Amino acid sequence: MSQKVAFQGINGAYSQQALRQHFGDDADPVSCLNLNIMFETILSKQAQYAILPVENALAGAVSMAYELLMDSDLRIQAEIILPIHHMLLAPRGTTLEDLKQVRSHPQALAQCDKFLKRNGLEPVPWYDTAGSAYDTSVDHAKGTGAIASELAAQLYNLEIVAREIEDLPFNFTRFFVLGDGDPAPGEYNKTSIVFATRNRAGALYECLGELATRGLSITKIESRPRRNRPWEPMFFLDFEGYWHDSDCQEALARLLQRASFVKMLGSYPAVKQQLVGI
Amino acid sequence: MSQKVAFQGINGAYSQQALRQHFGDDADPVSCLNLNIMFETILSKQAQYAILPVENALAGAVSMAYELLMDSDLRIQAEIILPIHHMLLAPRGTTLEDLKQVRSHPQALAQCDKFLKRNGLEPVPWYDTAGSAYDTSVDHAKGTGAIASELAAQLYNLEIVAREIEDLPFNFTRFFVLGDGDPAPGEYNKTSIVFATRNRAGALYECLGELATRGLSITKIESRPRRNRPWEPMFFLDFEGYWHDSDCQEALARLLQRASFVKMLGSYPAVKQQLVGI
Repeated sequence: MSQKVAFQGINGAYSQQALRQHFGDDADPVSCLNLNIMFETILSKQAQYAILPVENALAGAVSMAYELLMDSDLRIQAEIILPIHHMLLAPRGTTLEDLKQVRSHPQALAQCDKFLKRNGLEPVPWYDTAGSAYDTSVDHAKGTGAIASELAAQLYNLEIVAREIEDLPFNFTRFFVLGDGDPAPGEYNKTSIVFATRNRAGALYECLGELATRGLSITKIESRPRRNRPWEPMFFLDFEGYWHDSDCQEALARLLQRASFVKMLGSYPAVKQQLVGI
Repeated sequence: MSQKVAFQGINGAYSQQALRQHFGDDADPVSCLNLNIMFETILSKQAQYAILPVENALAGAVSMAYELLMDSDLRIQAEIILPIHHMLLAPRGTTLEDLKQVRSHPQALAQCDKFLKRNGLEPVPWYDTAGSAYDTSVDHAKGTGAIASELAAQLYNLEIVAREIEDLPFNFTRFFVLGDGDPAPGEYNKTSIVFATRNRAGALYECLGELATRGLSITKIESRPRRNRPWEPMFFLDFEGYWHDSDCQEALARLLQRASFVKMLGSYPAVKQQLVGI
């Protein structure tokens, strides 16, 4: 039996493309209208895994992703790095010359701004990338295309009028695969935690010292306001290492000793960033 | 003559509310369809200032905000912290009982999820919060409301059916005021820089040490992939201090000596975070 994997968005969303990249055809994708519903879906065991966009996500879901991660006891099972390539889609038989308007999420439109200008296409803000593809496949509005994923083209039987129309290369989104288990280490691993310091001046520096002095490299750090004390930051931190390794255990124990709180988000097989965006 | 200030979105956007909070009635707001257009507007001197959302922005504009900041030589003039209070809006005379559906940006809908469920309201994703208010004021769709700002209610003459319907308190967005000048210090100041380290293991820790050992507190840190070397992070960092102070100058000079590059984004009067969200 295939495993159920929840993702945010309708069919053809970039999150579903990330799901396919990671699970291949071995998964049964469960579309969720928003991240709240996605978390409910996995917590109520209607799915075993969920795909959470955490960096550079189109739908601006990132703030909320971290809020929800902070509130749940799910663990990160793996990371996915998905190169984002925008496709210009339209009903079958449409050519670039036929198009006057292009629908998509405002951020996708902005990421293809130069292409749209060069081709004299008017951007029409839409609530969602995959939604713009679906709606265009249904209403066949005259002279109207959509910017969405290659998967959306397949699912909604649309013509790919132009490929990879994004202005900048190296556009990618990072996702976590969330689940209940504790994944075994891979060849290359990361550990993700969130923590708050006990006081501010120099405290972050001292906490990071516990990692630095053990040669554990930081791959991501992001401060966010602490919810019940919004004037104090908490830090979402990823570093290279697996929790069970002795240097990692020692660093975590010392960090716990220094910090106001530490929450483990997961220790999981990760993607070597050197491979990204090429 | 009043000064022109550019913001992203249509009239009634939260960015315009931030603009009003900062400039009062002394400004002539210039609506820009997206952040690219907003930067073009200020660079071509069609506006003196621009309002850039940099943290927790609804439209997911944050990634792009940092890309654009990185590419421009504008300087941060001030910061604005805007508490985000969502209002349920509908044509005049509508009551909560009349409503079946509510339009808004997916993230605003998600932030009001519990309220919507409690009141049996169906969320309808829309491309923009202010856009959902405008469209509702124009098409008067039966049983349909919108979630947007209080300013949108005023501008589009809509009824505020329910106030502050967001599920979580302390929801705020941080904006930078961008411009050409070098602002004079205020009572409380921050300096924002972006930098990359020369190599990874422990390098971030050493760079932060230049601030920590001088008692300069970090208020925000965020790593992002470096565009031309996406496997190496760069760091957007805010710390308390004004560039002209001697400890700050010394820290910056030493950081410059250690780093691969440092770019000054601005040194500006800031908001004491203790006042936020109350």
